[in-house]
Amino acid sequence: MPGTHILSSHDAELARLTAEIVRMGDIAVDQLREAMVALTSRNTATADEVISRDVEIDALEQQVSEEVVQLALHGPMARDLREILAALRIASDIERVGDYAANLAKRALALGFTAPPTPARGLGALADIAIEMLEAVLEAYRNRDAEAAAAVRARDAELDALYTALFRELLTYMAEDPRTISSAIHLLFVAKNIERIGDHATNIAENIWYVVHGETPQKERDKRDATSTTLAGPGDGESG
Amino acid sequence: MPGTHILSSHDAELARLTAEIVRMGDIAVDQLREAMVALTSRNTATADEVISRDVEIDALEQQVSEEVVQLALHGPMARDLREILAALRIASDIERVGDYAANLAKRALALGFTAPPTPARGLGALADIAIEMLEAVLEAYRNRDAEAAAAVRARDAELDALYTALFRELLTYMAEDPRTISSAIHLLFVAKNIERIGDHATNIAENIWYVVHGETPQKERDKRDATSTTLAGPGDGESG
Repeated sequence: MPGTHILSSHDAELARLTAEIVRMGDIAVDQLREAMVALTSRNTATADEVISRDVEIDALEQQVSEEVVQLALHGPMARDLREILAALRIASDIERVGDYAANLAKRALALGFTAPPTPARGLGALADIAIEMLEAVLEAYRNRDAEAAAAVRARDAELDALYTALFRELLTYMAEDPRTISSAIHLLFVAKNIERIGDHATNIAENIWYVVHGETPQKERDKRDATSTTLAGPGDGESG
Repeated sequence: MPGTHILSSHDAELARLTAEIVRMGDIAVDQLREAMVALTSRNTATADEVISRDVEIDALEQQVSEEVVQLALHGPMARDLREILAALRIASDIERVGDYAANLAKRALALGFTAPPTPARGLGALADIAIEMLEAVLEAYRNRDAEAAAAVRARDAELDALYTALFRELLTYMAEDPRTISSAIHLLFVAKNIERIGDHATNIAENIWYVVHGETPQKERDKRDATSTTLAGPGDGESG
């Protein structure tokens, strides 16, 4: 029966596509890890490596996106709309995580040995949460597990809280010693980028939910954005 | 002849879709303008309006994206792959511009009357370039004009240069008077967000080029990213 034949070949292609996107995500996580190594250990070679490897993720995203649309053009099934949209958006979110990782590596180069050590430790904890969120959400996508995805969304609040604390610490730092302003601002942007990576993990989680349930969960942007309405810690919340 | 019939109805749908995306872009530009009014005139009511209107753009992006994929599922033509990918990405870039505008409005609320006036004027000039880039790129998309799109990309360097100058100004500001650090950092994030809006206008321009020529133009991310390897002005370059 041709129907089942199309269905099964389509499912095989979707599985292959999912594996490709997850692989892309694994590279992004790896890039983030290496960028943090470069940042904390001031390893220039590692930083250069992360920066030059970013084009790899960019190319994968373009390739995956075109494959997804090809699938769309040849897979006339109702559920595809969600799978196709989600796949494109997840690939795009992963590509941006890779960009942030490359940017962290650039800031590692910029900081050289000027960065204050204490906030740098806080950055490590911040990055660890972001990495855990990414790994969990990629696993959730692999299994189309909406509940696991929802759990990742919940962790974003933890990341935002730590970011705000770190932001305050850096602010105090600058106020106490204006000579640290330049490097502290670099660390501030580093922290901001890691917080944004958490937003992208959250976007991916929301897209998994959309695939499974057909609707985007109520966003909690407002809660996160609230931090930008105080002078304590400006969150951007420009994700979603 | 059914072929031409499908073709023409498809073209009609593509034209309608383009108009919808451009309308979405016009709202985003309007939001950015209003956000700058709120920021420079400290108008709380305007800020609240911009923030609450952001959901409108988010909803439009979701609607447009689903329509695009529906079109993909029923428009088996070679050129579609580019049009479909570009439409989805452009809608997504516009949605993010809207998010940045909402965030600017939030910072306007956060700043209250504490912001130093001088950099605020520089922010106006920065926003003007971003608005011009957005208007030009939406027009280029309406006309599928790759040359006009390339011109928008070129202007991004201008925006980045002004951002870096503003960044330096704010840095000096903070160093001279640590009491201004909190508000200066808000303005710094405002400047950063406007610079990122320029990156999204550039992304849209690159997608127009892709639709017309079938390839993404050589990105100049490295040039922009270079600013984040100095302590002068960290650019993020996490776009694309």
